[in-house]
Amino acid sequence: MNCILLPKDAKSIRDPQQITHIKKILKSKVGDSLTIGEMGGSIGKATIAQINHDEVLLTDMILDKQPPAKLDLTVILALPRPKVLRRLIMDMTSLGVDKLIVVNSYKSEKSYWQSPLLERIDEFVFEGLQQAIDTVPLIVEFKKRFKPFVEDEFSALLVDEDGEQRHAVIAHPYASQSWKTYLDGVEGKTDNMPKVLCIGAEGGWIDYEVDLLCKHGCTSVSLGERILRTETVVNVLLGHWLGSD
Amino acid sequence: MNCILLPKDAKSIRDPQQITHIKKILKSKVGDSLTIGEMGGSIGKATIAQINHDEVLLTDMILDKQPPAKLDLTVILALPRPKVLRRLIMDMTSLGVDKLIVVNSYKSEKSYWQSPLLERIDEFVFEGLQQAIDTVPLIVEFKKRFKPFVEDEFSALLVDEDGEQRHAVIAHPYASQSWKTYLDGVEGKTDNMPKVLCIGAEGGWIDYEVDLLCKHGCTSVSLGERILRTETVVNVLLGHWLGSD
Repeated sequence: MNCILLPKDAKSIRDPQQITHIKKILKSKVGDSLTIGEMGGSIGKATIAQINHDEVLLTDMILDKQPPAKLDLTVILALPRPKVLRRLIMDMTSLGVDKLIVVNSYKSEKSYWQSPLLERIDEFVFEGLQQAIDTVPLIVEFKKRFKPFVEDEFSALLVDEDGEQRHAVIAHPYASQSWKTYLDGVEGKTDNMPKVLCIGAEGGWIDYEVDLLCKHGCTSVSLGERILRTETVVNVLLGHWLGSD
Repeated sequence: MNCILLPKDAKSIRDPQQITHIKKILKSKVGDSLTIGEMGGSIGKATIAQINHDEVLLTDMILDKQPPAKLDLTVILALPRPKVLRRLIMDMTSLGVDKLIVVNSYKSEKSYWQSPLLERIDEFVFEGLQQAIDTVPLIVEFKKRFKPFVEDEFSALLVDEDGEQRHAVIAHPYASQSWKTYLDGVEGKTDNMPKVLCIGAEGGWIDYEVDLLCKHGCTSVSLGERILRTETVVNVLLGHWLGSD
Protein backbone atom coordinates (compact mmCIF):
# COMPACT_ATOMS: atom_id res chain seq x y z
CA MET A 1 0.00 0.00 0.00
CA ASN A 2 2.03 2.93 -1.33
CA CYS A 3 -0.91 5.32 -1.25
CA ILE A 4 -4.20 5.48 0.61
CA LEU A 5 -7.03 5.62 -1.90
CA LEU A 6 -10.09 7.53 -0.69
CA PRO A 7 -13.60 8.17 -2.03
CA LYS A 8 -14.15 11.58 -3.62
CA ASP A 9 -14.19 14.44 -1.09
CA ALA A 10 -13.40 12.20 1.90
CA LYS A 11 -11.73 14.02 4.78
CA SER A 12 -11.01 10.95 6.87
CA ILE A 13 -9.96 7.32 6.50
CA ARG A 14 -12.51 4.71 7.63
CA ASP A 15 -11.43 1.58 5.74
CA PRO A 16 -10.24 -0.88 8.45
CA GLN A 17 -7.41 -2.24 6.27
CA GLN A 18 -6.10 1.25 5.56
CA ILE A 19 -6.30 2.14 9.27
CA THR A 20 -4.42 -1.04 10.21
CA HIS A 21 -1.79 -0.25 7.58
CA ILE A 22 -1.33 3.29 8.95
CA LYS A 23 -1.07 2.07 12.56
CA LYS A 24 0.86 -1.20 12.17
CA ILE A 25 3.00 -0.88 9.05
CA LEU A 26 3.60 2.86 8.64
CA LYS A 27 3.43 3.40 12.42
CA SER A 28 2.25 6.94 11.65
CA LYS A 29 1.54 9.55 14.32
CA VAL A 30 -0.53 12.72 14.42
CA GLY A 31 1.23 15.34 12.28
CA ASP A 32 2.74 12.77 9.89
CA SER A 33 2.14 13.06 6.15
CA LEU A 34 0.45 10.37 4.05
CA THR A 35 0.37 9.80 0.29
CA ILE A 36 -3.29 10.03 -0.69
CA GLY A 37 -5.20 9.36 -3.92
CA GLU A 38 -8.77 10.27 -4.74
CA MET A 39 -10.57 7.42 -6.49
CA GLY A 40 -10.61 8.31 -10.19
CA GLY A 41 -8.93 11.64 -9.45
CA SER A 42 -5.62 13.17 -8.38
CA ILE A 43 -2.79 12.15 -6.06
CA GLY A 44 -1.15 14.15 -3.30
CA LYS A 45 -0.49 14.42 0.42
CA ALA A 46 -2.46 14.91 3.60
CA THR A 47 -1.50 15.33 7.25
CA ILE A 48 -2.89 13.18 10.04
CA ALA A 49 -4.98 15.36 12.39
CA GLN A 50 -6.29 12.67 14.72
CA ILE A 51 -6.08 8.87 15.04
CA ASN A 52 -9.13 7.16 16.52
CA HIS A 53 -10.06 3.51 16.85
CA ASP A 54 -12.12 3.40 13.64
CA GLU A 55 -11.16 6.61 11.88
CA VAL A 56 -8.10 8.65 10.93
CA LEU A 57 -8.90 12.34 10.46
CA LEU A 58 -6.94 14.23 7.81
CA THR A 59 -6.05 17.87 7.32
CA ASP A 60 -4.10 19.99 4.80
CA MET A 61 -4.96 17.68 1.92
CA ILE A 62 -3.34 18.77 -1.34
CA LEU A 63 -4.11 16.64 -4.40
CA ASP A 64 -2.01 18.22 -7.13
CA LYS A 65 -0.65 15.35 -9.21
CA GLN A 66 -2.25 13.44 -12.08
CA PRO A 67 -2.30 9.64 -11.84
CA PRO A 68 0.22 7.84 -14.09
CA ALA A 69 -0.88 7.23 -17.68
CA LYS A 70 -2.54 3.93 -18.53
CA LEU A 71 -1.09 1.58 -21.14
CA ASP A 72 -3.06 1.55 -24.38
CA LEU A 73 -3.67 -2.16 -23.96
CA THR A 74 -6.55 -4.60 -23.54
CA VAL A 75 -5.66 -8.03 -22.15
CA ILE A 76 -7.85 -11.04 -23.01
CA LEU A 77 -7.22 -13.69 -20.38
CA ALA A 78 -8.55 -17.26 -20.24
CA LEU A 79 -10.06 -17.70 -16.75
CA PRO A 80 -7.31 -19.17 -14.53
CA ARG A 81 -7.63 -20.54 -10.99
CA PRO A 82 -9.38 -17.77 -9.05
CA LYS A 83 -6.46 -17.35 -6.63
CA VAL A 84 -4.19 -16.75 -9.61
CA LEU A 85 -6.74 -14.33 -11.09
CA ARG A 86 -6.52 -12.30 -7.90
CA ARG A 87 -2.76 -11.77 -8.21
CA LEU A 88 -3.05 -11.19 -11.96
CA ILE A 89 -5.66 -8.47 -11.48
CA MET A 90 -3.47 -6.78 -8.87
CA ASP A 91 -0.46 -6.96 -11.18
CA MET A 92 -2.28 -5.78 -14.31
CA THR A 93 -3.77 -2.90 -12.34
CA SER A 94 -0.42 -1.87 -10.92
CA LEU A 95 1.21 -2.12 -14.35
CA GLY A 96 -1.47 0.17 -15.81
CA VAL A 97 -3.38 -2.13 -18.16
CA ASP A 98 -6.46 -0.27 -19.40
CA LYS A 99 -8.94 -3.14 -19.76
CA LEU A 100 -9.09 -6.85 -18.94
CA ILE A 101 -11.55 -9.23 -20.56
CA VAL A 102 -11.69 -12.61 -18.81
CA VAL A 103 -13.00 -15.30 -21.18
CA ASN A 104 -13.90 -18.92 -20.80
CA SER A 105 -11.58 -21.44 -22.45
CA TYR A 106 -11.57 -25.19 -22.90
CA LYS A 107 -9.02 -25.61 -20.12
CA SER A 108 -10.71 -23.26 -17.61
CA GLU A 109 -12.48 -25.49 -15.11
CA LYS A 110 -16.23 -24.81 -14.95
CA SER A 111 -16.13 -24.55 -11.16
CA TYR A 112 -13.89 -21.47 -11.42
CA TRP A 113 -16.87 -19.45 -12.64
CA GLN A 114 -18.66 -20.14 -9.33
CA SER A 115 -15.78 -18.94 -7.14
CA PRO A 116 -16.72 -16.25 -4.58
CA LEU A 117 -13.42 -14.54 -5.46
CA LEU A 118 -15.02 -13.44 -8.73
CA GLU A 119 -17.32 -11.20 -6.67
CA ARG A 120 -14.29 -9.45 -5.16
CA ILE A 121 -12.67 -8.06 -8.32
CA ASP A 122 -13.07 -4.42 -7.23
CA GLU A 123 -11.12 -5.23 -4.08
CA PHE A 124 -8.18 -6.68 -6.06
CA VAL A 125 -8.17 -3.69 -8.42
CA PHE A 126 -8.16 -1.44 -5.36
CA GLU A 127 -5.11 -3.27 -3.97
CA GLY A 128 -3.29 -2.87 -7.29
CA LEU A 129 -4.06 0.87 -7.43
CA GLN A 130 -2.78 1.42 -3.88
CA GLN A 131 0.36 -0.55 -4.76
CA ALA A 132 1.16 1.49 -7.88
CA ILE A 133 -0.06 4.91 -6.62
CA ASP A 134 -2.78 5.10 -9.25
CA THR A 135 -6.42 6.15 -8.94
CA VAL A 136 -8.05 4.98 -12.18
CA PRO A 137 -9.41 1.41 -11.94
CA LEU A 138 -8.66 -1.33 -14.44
CA ILE A 139 -11.87 -2.12 -16.34
CA VAL A 140 -12.71 -5.82 -15.93
CA GLU A 141 -15.29 -7.70 -18.01
CA PHE A 142 -16.23 -11.38 -18.05
CA LYS A 143 -17.27 -13.34 -21.14
CA LYS A 144 -18.51 -16.79 -20.32
CA ARG A 145 -18.87 -17.92 -23.93
CA PHE A 146 -15.67 -17.96 -25.95
CA LYS A 147 -16.99 -18.46 -29.49
CA PRO A 148 -19.66 -15.70 -29.49
CA PHE A 149 -17.16 -13.34 -27.87
CA VAL A 150 -14.53 -13.92 -30.55
CA GLU A 151 -16.97 -14.00 -33.46
CA ASP A 152 -19.16 -11.05 -32.43
CA GLU A 153 -17.09 -8.76 -30.21
CA PHE A 154 -13.39 -9.36 -30.75
CA SER A 155 -13.09 -7.61 -34.12
CA ALA A 156 -14.34 -4.33 -32.63
CA LEU A 157 -11.29 -4.29 -30.32
CA LEU A 158 -9.00 -4.24 -33.35
CA VAL A 159 -10.19 -0.92 -34.74
CA ASP A 160 -9.48 2.40 -33.03
CA GLU A 161 -11.72 5.48 -32.93
CA ASP A 162 -10.34 6.72 -36.25
CA GLY A 163 -11.00 3.40 -37.97
CA GLU A 164 -7.28 2.46 -37.89
CA GLN A 165 -6.28 -1.17 -37.41
CA ARG A 166 -4.89 -2.17 -33.97
CA HIS A 167 -2.61 -5.19 -33.64
CA ALA A 168 -3.46 -8.19 -31.48
CA VAL A 169 -1.18 -11.03 -30.41
CA ILE A 170 -1.86 -14.35 -28.72
CA ALA A 171 0.81 -15.98 -26.56
CA HIS A 172 1.07 -19.65 -27.51
CA PRO A 173 4.07 -21.88 -26.73
CA TYR A 174 3.82 -23.66 -30.09
CA ALA A 175 3.62 -20.58 -32.34
CA SER A 176 6.23 -20.53 -35.08
CA GLN A 177 7.05 -16.82 -34.66
CA SER A 178 8.91 -15.77 -31.51
CA TRP A 179 7.80 -12.81 -29.43
CA LYS A 180 11.24 -11.26 -29.98
CA THR A 181 11.01 -11.51 -33.77
CA TYR A 182 7.55 -9.99 -33.59
CA LEU A 183 8.80 -7.11 -31.41
CA ASP A 184 11.71 -6.43 -33.75
CA GLY A 185 9.09 -6.05 -36.48
CA VAL A 186 7.17 -3.37 -34.58
CA GLU A 187 10.44 -1.66 -33.64
CA GLY A 188 9.45 -1.49 -29.97
CA LYS A 189 7.67 1.85 -30.44
CA THR A 190 4.59 2.46 -28.32
CA ASP A 191 2.41 3.33 -31.29
CA ASN A 192 3.31 0.06 -32.96
CA MET A 193 2.99 -2.18 -29.93
CA PRO A 194 -0.01 -4.50 -30.06
CA LYS A 195 -3.11 -3.06 -28.42
CA VAL A 196 -4.65 -6.44 -27.60
CA LEU A 197 -2.84 -9.31 -25.89
CA CYS A 198 -4.45 -12.77 -25.43
CA ILE A 199 -3.04 -15.02 -22.71
CA GLY A 200 -4.12 -18.57 -21.87
CA ALA A 201 -4.57 -20.08 -18.43
CA GLU A 202 -2.87 -23.18 -17.03
CA GLY A 203 -2.52 -25.65 -19.89
CA GLY A 204 -2.71 -22.89 -22.50
CA TRP A 205 -5.17 -22.45 -25.35
CA ILE A 206 -6.33 -25.40 -27.42
CA ASP A 207 -5.71 -25.31 -31.19
CA TYR A 208 -9.34 -24.46 -31.93
CA GLU A 209 -9.11 -21.33 -29.75
CA VAL A 210 -5.80 -20.21 -31.25
CA ASP A 211 -7.14 -20.78 -34.75
CA LEU A 212 -10.36 -18.86 -34.08
CA LEU A 213 -8.48 -15.88 -32.60
CA CYS A 214 -5.99 -15.90 -35.49
CA LYS A 215 -8.85 -16.09 -38.00
CA HIS A 216 -10.19 -12.92 -36.38
CA GLY A 217 -6.95 -10.98 -36.64
CA CYS A 218 -4.55 -12.24 -33.95
CA THR A 219 -0.90 -13.03 -34.58
CA SER A 220 0.35 -15.98 -32.52
CA VAL A 221 3.77 -15.62 -30.87
CA SER A 222 5.87 -17.93 -28.73
CA LEU A 223 7.99 -17.06 -25.70
CA GLY A 224 10.37 -19.97 -26.35
CA GLU A 225 10.58 -23.57 -25.25
CA ARG A 226 10.25 -22.93 -21.52
CA ILE A 227 6.69 -23.46 -20.26
CA LEU A 228 5.84 -20.65 -17.83
CA ARG A 229 3.09 -20.12 -15.27
CA THR A 230 0.27 -17.79 -16.37
CA GLU A 231 1.32 -15.25 -13.73
CA THR A 232 4.88 -15.27 -15.01
CA VAL A 233 3.84 -14.95 -18.65
CA VAL A 234 1.59 -11.96 -17.97
CA ASN A 235 4.33 -9.94 -16.28
CA VAL A 236 7.05 -11.09 -18.68
CA LEU A 237 4.97 -9.83 -21.60
CA LEU A 238 3.64 -6.65 -19.97
CA GLY A 239 7.21 -5.58 -19.17
CA HIS A 240 7.60 -4.78 -22.85
CA TRP A 241 4.89 -2.12 -22.69
CA LEU A 242 6.31 -0.46 -19.60
CA GLY A 243 8.10 2.72 -20.52
CA SER A 244 8.06 1.68 -24.16
CA ASP A 245 7.65 5.24 -25.40
CA MET B 1 4.60 -29.90 -13.40
CA ASN B 2 5.26 -30.16 -17.13
CA CYS B 3 7.95 -32.78 -16.72
CA ILE B 4 8.84 -35.35 -14.06
CA LEU B 5 12.39 -34.74 -12.92
CA LEU B 6 14.22 -37.88 -11.78
CA PRO B 7 17.59 -38.62 -10.18
CA LYS B 8 20.26 -39.93 -12.58
CA ASP B 9 19.63 -43.51 -13.76
CA ALA B 10 16.27 -43.81 -11.96
CA LYS B 11 13.91 -46.34 -13.53
CA SER B 12 10.92 -45.54 -11.38
CA ILE B 13 9.18 -42.60 -9.73
CA ARG B 14 9.09 -42.60 -5.93
CA ASP B 15 8.53 -38.94 -5.07
CA PRO B 16 5.04 -38.77 -3.48
CA GLN B 17 4.22 -35.39 -5.10
CA GLN B 18 5.14 -36.69 -8.55
CA ILE B 19 3.06 -39.84 -7.99
CA THR B 20 0.07 -37.78 -6.86
CA HIS B 21 0.48 -35.55 -9.93
CA ILE B 22 0.53 -38.57 -12.25
CA LYS B 23 -2.52 -40.15 -10.61
CA LYS B 24 -4.69 -37.10 -9.83
CA ILE B 25 -3.80 -34.42 -12.37
CA LEU B 26 -2.52 -36.32 -15.42
CA LYS B 27 -4.81 -39.30 -14.62
CA SER B 28 -2.24 -41.47 -16.42
CA LYS B 29 -2.64 -45.22 -16.95
CA VAL B 30 -0.23 -48.07 -17.65
CA GLY B 31 1.05 -47.63 -21.22
CA ASP B 32 0.77 -43.84 -21.16
CA SER B 33 3.81 -41.70 -22.01
CA LEU B 34 5.33 -39.14 -19.60
CA THR B 35 7.74 -36.26 -20.19
CA ILE B 36 10.82 -37.05 -18.11
CA GLY B 37 13.96 -35.12 -17.26
CA GLU B 38 17.14 -36.42 -15.66
CA MET B 39 18.44 -34.05 -12.97
CA GLY B 40 21.30 -32.13 -14.58
CA GLY B 41 20.93 -34.16 -17.77
CA SER B 42 18.66 -34.66 -20.77
CA ILE B 43 14.91 -34.57 -21.37
CA GLY B 44 12.72 -37.14 -23.08
CA LYS B 45 9.89 -39.62 -22.68
CA ALA B 46 9.14 -42.80 -20.79
CA THR B 47 6.21 -45.19 -20.74
CA ILE B 48 4.40 -46.21 -17.55
CA ALA B 49 4.95 -49.95 -16.96
CA GLN B 50 3.22 -50.28 -13.60
CA ILE B 51 1.47 -47.99 -11.08
CA ASN B 52 1.79 -49.00 -7.43
CA HIS B 53 0.83 -47.22 -4.24
CA ASP B 54 4.28 -45.73 -3.64
CA GLU B 55 6.05 -46.23 -6.96
CA VAL B 56 5.48 -45.78 -10.68
CA LEU B 57 7.66 -48.12 -12.77
CA LEU B 58 8.89 -46.82 -16.13
CA THR B 59 9.99 -48.50 -19.33
CA ASP B 60 11.24 -47.43 -22.79
CA MET B 61 12.92 -44.32 -21.43
CA ILE B 62 14.48 -42.20 -24.18
CA LEU B 63 16.27 -39.05 -23.06
CA ASP B 64 17.37 -37.44 -26.31
CA LYS B 65 16.87 -33.72 -25.86
CA GLN B 66 19.13 -31.12 -24.28
CA PRO B 67 17.60 -28.87 -21.62
CA PRO B 68 16.88 -25.29 -22.74
CA ALA B 69 19.81 -22.85 -22.59
CA LYS B 70 20.23 -20.76 -19.44
CA LEU B 71 20.25 -16.97 -19.55
CA ASP B 72 23.70 -15.45 -19.09
CA LEU B 73 22.45 -13.59 -16.05
CA THR B 74 23.12 -13.35 -12.31
CA VAL B 75 20.36 -11.78 -10.22
CA ILE B 76 21.25 -10.05 -6.93
CA LEU B 77 18.08 -9.91 -4.83
CA ALA B 78 17.55 -8.21 -1.48
CA LEU B 79 15.97 -10.84 0.80
CA PRO B 80 12.17 -10.41 0.54
CA ARG B 81 9.47 -12.03 2.67
CA PRO B 82 10.25 -15.77 2.53
CA LYS B 83 6.89 -16.61 0.92
CA VAL B 84 7.71 -14.16 -1.86
CA LEU B 85 11.21 -15.63 -2.18
CA ARG B 86 9.64 -19.01 -2.81
CA ARG B 87 7.65 -17.78 -5.81
CA LEU B 88 10.60 -15.73 -7.06
CA ILE B 89 12.92 -18.73 -6.98
CA MET B 90 10.37 -20.79 -8.90
CA ASP B 91 9.96 -18.02 -11.47
CA MET B 92 13.67 -17.32 -11.87
CA THR B 93 14.32 -21.04 -12.27
CA SER B 94 11.61 -21.46 -14.86
CA LEU B 95 12.82 -18.38 -16.75
CA GLY B 96 16.35 -19.83 -16.88
CA VAL B 97 18.33 -17.44 -14.67
CA ASP B 98 21.80 -18.91 -14.15
CA LYS B 99 22.58 -17.72 -10.63
CA LEU B 100 20.78 -15.96 -7.79
CA ILE B 101 22.58 -14.21 -4.94
CA VAL B 102 20.24 -13.28 -2.08
CA VAL B 103 21.72 -10.44 -0.03
CA ASN B 104 20.73 -8.70 3.14
CA SER B 105 19.47 -5.15 2.79
CA TYR B 106 18.42 -2.42 5.19
CA LYS B 107 14.74 -3.12 4.52
CA SER B 108 14.96 -6.94 4.78
CA GLU B 109 13.55 -7.83 8.20
CA LYS B 110 16.08 -9.73 10.32
CA SER B 111 13.51 -12.43 11.13
CA TYR B 112 13.38 -13.41 7.44
CA TRP B 113 16.85 -14.96 7.78
CA GLN B 114 15.48 -17.40 10.37
CA SER B 115 12.58 -18.62 8.21
CA PRO B 116 12.42 -22.41 7.73
CA LEU B 117 11.53 -21.73 4.09
CA LEU B 118 15.18 -20.78 3.53
CA GLU B 119 16.06 -24.44 4.15
CA ARG B 120 13.75 -25.49 1.31
CA ILE B 121 15.38 -23.66 -1.59
CA ASP B 122 16.20 -26.88 -3.48
CA GLU B 123 12.52 -27.78 -3.41
CA PHE B 124 11.48 -24.45 -4.98
CA VAL B 125 14.17 -24.76 -7.64
CA PHE B 126 12.89 -28.29 -8.35
CA GLU B 127 9.34 -26.96 -8.81
CA GLY B 128 10.61 -24.31 -11.23
CA LEU B 129 12.54 -26.88 -13.28
CA GLN B 130 9.51 -29.17 -13.54
CA GLN B 131 7.38 -26.18 -14.58
CA ALA B 132 9.75 -25.09 -17.37
CA ILE B 133 10.91 -28.57 -18.52
CA ASP B 134 14.50 -27.90 -17.51
CA THR B 135 16.99 -30.08 -15.63
CA VAL B 136 19.82 -27.72 -14.63
CA PRO B 137 19.21 -26.09 -11.23
CA LEU B 138 19.43 -22.37 -10.57
CA ILE B 139 22.48 -21.74 -8.37
CA VAL B 140 21.38 -19.96 -5.18
CA GLU B 141 23.76 -18.28 -2.73
CA PHE B 142 23.04 -16.25 0.39
CA LYS B 143 25.12 -13.29 1.56
CA LYS B 144 24.09 -12.08 4.96
CA ARG B 145 26.38 -9.04 4.98
CA PHE B 146 25.71 -6.49 2.28
CA LYS B 147 28.79 -4.26 2.53
CA PRO B 148 31.49 -6.99 2.50
CA PHE B 149 29.65 -8.70 -0.36
CA VAL B 150 29.60 -5.56 -2.51
CA GLU B 151 33.10 -4.45 -1.59
CA ASP B 152 34.86 -7.79 -1.81
CA GLU B 153 32.87 -10.02 -4.15
CA PHE B 154 30.66 -7.93 -6.43
CA SER B 155 33.40 -6.66 -8.75
CA ALA B 156 34.37 -10.22 -9.69
CA LEU B 157 30.87 -10.68 -11.16
CA LEU B 158 31.49 -7.84 -13.60
CA VAL B 159 34.40 -9.45 -15.41
CA ASP B 160 33.97 -12.48 -17.66
CA GLU B 161 36.44 -15.35 -18.20
CA ASP B 162 38.27 -13.40 -20.89
CA GLY B 163 38.66 -10.34 -18.69
CA GLU B 164 35.93 -8.45 -20.56
CA GLN B 165 33.65 -6.08 -18.65
CA ARG B 166 30.07 -7.27 -17.96
CA HIS B 167 27.30 -4.72 -17.39
CA ALA B 168 25.28 -4.56 -14.18
CA VAL B 169 22.06 -2.65 -13.54
CA ILE B 170 20.15 -1.90 -10.37
CA ALA B 171 16.38 -1.38 -10.49
CA HIS B 172 15.55 1.70 -8.44
CA PRO B 173 12.31 3.70 -8.75
CA TYR B 174 14.12 7.01 -8.31
CA ALA B 175 16.90 6.49 -10.88
CA SER B 176 17.12 9.26 -13.46
CA GLN B 177 17.65 6.90 -16.41
CA SER B 178 14.70 4.76 -17.53
CA TRP B 179 15.05 1.04 -18.20
CA LYS B 180 13.81 1.66 -21.74
CA THR B 181 16.44 4.31 -22.47
CA TYR B 182 19.08 1.97 -21.08
CA LEU B 183 17.83 -0.90 -23.28
CA ASP B 184 17.84 1.31 -26.37
CA GLY B 185 21.50 1.96 -25.61
CA VAL B 186 22.41 -1.74 -25.57
CA GLU B 187 20.28 -2.27 -28.71
CA GLY B 188 18.47 -5.22 -27.14
CA LYS B 189 21.12 -7.70 -28.29
CA THR B 190 21.86 -10.65 -26.00
CA ASP B 191 25.59 -9.96 -25.94
CA ASN B 192 24.97 -6.42 -24.81
CA MET B 193 22.29 -7.16 -22.24
CA PRO B 194 23.44 -6.65 -18.65
CA LYS B 195 24.82 -9.80 -17.05
CA VAL B 196 24.03 -8.75 -13.49
CA LEU B 197 20.66 -7.42 -12.30
CA CYS B 198 20.11 -6.08 -8.76
CA ILE B 199 16.54 -5.99 -7.46
CA GLY B 200 15.37 -4.67 -4.08
CA ALA B 201 12.77 -6.20 -1.79
CA GLU B 202 9.60 -4.55 -0.46
CA GLY B 203 10.45 -0.91 0.17
CA GLY B 204 13.35 -0.97 -2.29
CA TRP B 205 17.01 -0.20 -1.69
CA ILE B 206 18.09 2.68 0.52
CA ASP B 207 20.31 5.38 -0.98
CA TYR B 208 23.43 4.01 0.70
CA GLU B 209 22.92 0.61 -0.97
CA VAL B 210 22.25 2.11 -4.41
CA ASP B 211 25.29 4.36 -4.06
CA LEU B 212 27.56 1.51 -2.99
CA LEU B 213 26.45 -0.71 -5.87
CA CYS B 214 26.83 2.15 -8.35
CA LYS B 215 30.29 2.94 -6.97
CA HIS B 216 31.19 -0.68 -7.76
CA GLY B 217 30.01 -0.57 -11.35
CA CYS B 218 26.19 -0.70 -11.39
CA THR B 219 24.02 1.55 -13.53
CA SER B 220 20.74 2.50 -11.83
CA VAL B 221 17.58 2.39 -13.95
CA SER B 222 13.95 3.17 -13.22
CA LEU B 223 10.84 1.34 -14.43
CA GLY B 224 8.75 4.50 -14.25
CA GLU B 225 6.57 6.14 -11.65
CA ARG B 226 4.46 3.10 -10.83
CA ILE B 227 5.67 1.27 -7.70
CA LEU B 228 5.54 -2.48 -8.34
CA ARG B 229 5.74 -5.55 -6.11
CA THR B 230 9.12 -7.32 -6.08
CA GLU B 231 7.56 -10.36 -7.79
CA THR B 232 6.17 -8.19 -10.56
CA VAL B 233 9.44 -6.31 -11.07
CA VAL B 234 11.48 -9.49 -11.36
CA ASN B 235 9.32 -10.93 -14.14
CA VAL B 236 8.81 -7.59 -15.88
CA LEU B 237 12.59 -7.18 -16.12
CA LEU B 238 13.47 -10.79 -16.92
CA GLY B 239 11.05 -10.74 -19.85
CA HIS B 240 13.60 -8.62 -21.68
CA TRP B 241 16.18 -11.42 -21.59
CA LEU B 242 13.74 -14.04 -22.84
CA GLY B 243 14.40 -14.82 -26.46
CA SER B 244 16.54 -11.71 -26.74
CA ASP B 245 18.97 -13.30 -29.21
